[in-house]
Amino acid sequence: MAIITLTTDFGHKDHFVGAIKGTIYNELSDAKIVDISHSISPFNIQECAYILKNSYKAFPPGTIHIVGVDSEPTVENKHIAVYVDGHFFISANNGVISLITSEIKPEKIVEIHIPNPVHGSFPVLDVFVQVACHIARGGKLEVVGKPFEDLKLLKEFSPRVINDGNTIVGSVIYIDNYGNVISNIQRSLFEAYRNGRNFEILARNKKILTIYNKYSEIIDFSQDKSKRKGPGDLLALFNSAGYIELAIYKSDLNTVGGASTLLGLDYRDTITINFL
Amino acid sequence: MAIITLTTDFGHKDHFVGAIKGTIYNELSDAKIVDISHSISPFNIQECAYILKNSYKAFPPGTIHIVGVDSEPTVENKHIAVYVDGHFFISANNGVISLITSEIKPEKIVEIHIPNPVHGSFPVLDVFVQVACHIARGGKLEVVGKPFEDLKLLKEFSPRVINDGNTIVGSVIYIDNYGNVISNIQRSLFEAYRNGRNFEILARNKKILTIYNKYSEIIDFSQDKSKRKGPGDLLALFNSAGYIELAIYKSDLNTVGGASTLLGLDYRDTITINFL
Amino acid sequence: MAIITLTTDFGHKDHFVGAIKGTIYNELSDAKIVDISHSISPFNIQECAYILKNSYKAFPPGTIHIVGVDSEPTVENKHIAVYVDGHFFISANNGVISLITSEIKPEKIVEIHIPNPVHGSFPVLDVFVQVACHIARGGKLEVVGKPFEDLKLLKEFSPRVINDGNTIVGSVIYIDNYGNVISNIQRSLFEAYRNGRNFEILARNKKILTIYNKYSEIIDFSQDKSKRKGPGDLLALFNSAGYIELAIYKSDLNTVGGASTLLGLDYRDTITINFL
Repeated sequence: MAIITLTTDFGHKDHFVGAIKGTIYNELSDAKIVDISHSISPFNIQECAYILKNSYKAFPPGTIHIVGVDSEPTVENKHIAVYVDGHFFISANNGVISLITSEIKPEKIVEIHIPNPVHGSFPVLDVFVQVACHIARGGKLEVVGKPFEDLKLLKEFSPRVINDGNTIVGSVIYIDNYGNVISNIQRSLFEAYRNGRNFEILARNKKILTIYNKYSEIIDFSQDKSKRKGPGDLLALFNSAGYIELAIYKSDLNTVGGASTLLGLDYRDTITINFL
Repeated sequence: MAIITLTTDFGHKDHFVGAIKGTIYNELSDAKIVDISHSISPFNIQECAYILKNSYKAFPPGTIHIVGVDSEPTVENKHIAVYVDGHFFISANNGVISLITSEIKPEKIVEIHIPNPVHGSFPVLDVFVQVACHIARGGKLEVVGKPFEDLKLLKEFSPRVINDGNTIVGSVIYIDNYGNVISNIQRSLFEAYRNGRNFEILARNKKILTIYNKYSEIIDFSQDKSKRKGPGDLLALFNSAGYIELAIYKSDLNTVGGASTLLGLDYRDTITINFL
Repeated sequence: MAIITLTTDFGHKDHFVGAIKGTIYNELSDAKIVDISHSISPFNIQECAYILKNSYKAFPPGTIHIVGVDSEPTVENKHIAVYVDGHFFISANNGVISLITSEIKPEKIVEIHIPNPVHGSFPVLDVFVQVACHIARGGKLEVVGKPFEDLKLLKEFSPRVINDGNTIVGSVIYIDNYGNVISNIQRSLFEAYRNGRNFEILARNKKILTIYNKYSEIIDFSQDKSKRKGPGDLLALFNSAGYIELAIYKSDLNTVGGASTLLGLDYRDTITINFL
């Protein structure tokens, strides 16, 4: 039995997630349902894509991912089911799929048409769950829709390489639970232009000259504890998702604050790298 | 094996939910436990009822619902197990059951008496879990309690129809993850008194003349994008639970705000419908 | 198949928990994964220990507990796997294990060494999940590490008994979802020194003379409702975890407030008991 994952902006209080799980178990008593996140900022496609992009591959091939963000169908936001990279995604055609699988061409996309659809305000329950159960039972995509080619492309947040390859201008695409700020500059892009040069990372009025592979590399453990850097110091990191991240060592948004609050960085703000 | 659902005000941080799940798995290694919500506002029976009322039916018949809100037993708040509408509920007799199943007469109610009860401050673990496991193993309600008839009735939040059927005075019963405001006025009541007439919905200083079936109906897609209504506009909706809801299109409580914050509407505030 | 529990400070929004679950299901398709908490305050070892200490025993023997708080390995924070009290814990050697199992000597501790380790910033995924799956498949601890004896001991928050046994000076170790304040004074310590005497509990400028076994014992149900104590009154309680707790009856941090906010009590603040 395939796994069905849920990624939504429904939050953890309302009845929506419970109703979805009950309906799935009602159809498939041995279903395996996994919550990826229900705390996407409402209607935030970019955030949703970052989270799914960095978690879907961990699941076994054939996993079915329900994407419940901005899912109400309109003439400009059709329901689609996509098979790409060995995984199924059920979503509205709002750009999220193109952001998740930007480097991979989908093998199959259908526009969803199910019999006797409910035209209400809870399409994740009324439509996506039905399609997910169909796929989980081994059903083909062709049965729940017709071929579709007009996948909405969102690419607005790519970093720009300017100044003859001496500068990369990126932007903030995600702020995590610790307030760490994730840029859209991937390690691969950084290394492609670096050519062994020194560099400076500029964000607001801060300058950083080193990128670590893990947070604790900021600490020199050969020093006496009283002389070490510690909680509250700013660092840059290639994070586990492969992006350049600005972090406060051992940050806590509720106490010392995180990179987002201490640097005043928000979504779409600029992070610049100059090669020297 | 029956499903056991959990609806509590325990939140997501403390050890309570983990301890409950561990105990259930210890008794029933193949149990299927589903979180409906742990984010009920503390001791808020109305909120708990709204969430359970709109999710329990999605689960298969025979599902066991543990209701962990205001569950400490007193002489005025006895522990009960109820079989109604094909589902089991284990709860304190605090009114929540009457709100969930207001239109359906319970088939069986018992006051819970288990051997060697623990008289502590965690009755959901000490009592409800034991009863749930008993039912999940196919045990009868009569074994864990004696027949009980004094189900506490809560009905205070029914809308009033006044002015010779020309006005419905409702109130706010729930505010969802998006800040959307749900009234206690059901579509069926509205339609019963409308008789094809025009109407106005009044909430604070706002007046609404239309009720949609989905949020995006506020958008006229034949218009140029620059001229359309959009995120931030107020609308009324028959929501997926059948209630009249006031919503801000594509609201986000953390940015543009929701209907609750923008209109200043809170629990129990009045929403009036005048038929014209 | 053993249960694998997760206790982390990852929060509920990011991709971390989804990626962990996907990876486990990819290795063990019939794994049973239980979230204990993902809302530990970042890097807060004491909080993590309180939550795990009060939930792990509920799970069946052989359960595998992944502890994802302050888990980045350094020369001073090695990765360990511990078998103690019939349970497995996978953690960094940051003191959390000593706090959880302070009264029980671990049967086996190994320092984790897995082949081809990833040295990144997501060791819970890269290391702990591998070790957990190894144990879940019935593998021995010796295979993933070498014997280790240098378990970091954290004991700083023990209460002090002073004044010839007439005074216990404790401190706040946890604040729960209701804002209730949990001290590190256990019932057993309190009873050992009480000897039937009266007592006063002092916290900030408040004095409490009674300790209840459940919250509702503050109410005298023989009184008319209008004369009773009620929501908003301060009480002391032996909580379900065996600690002395200060609580506001039916508190809600979002409305009436909790003991933490109303008394101004925070982590590490002092709670004093004088025997009279």
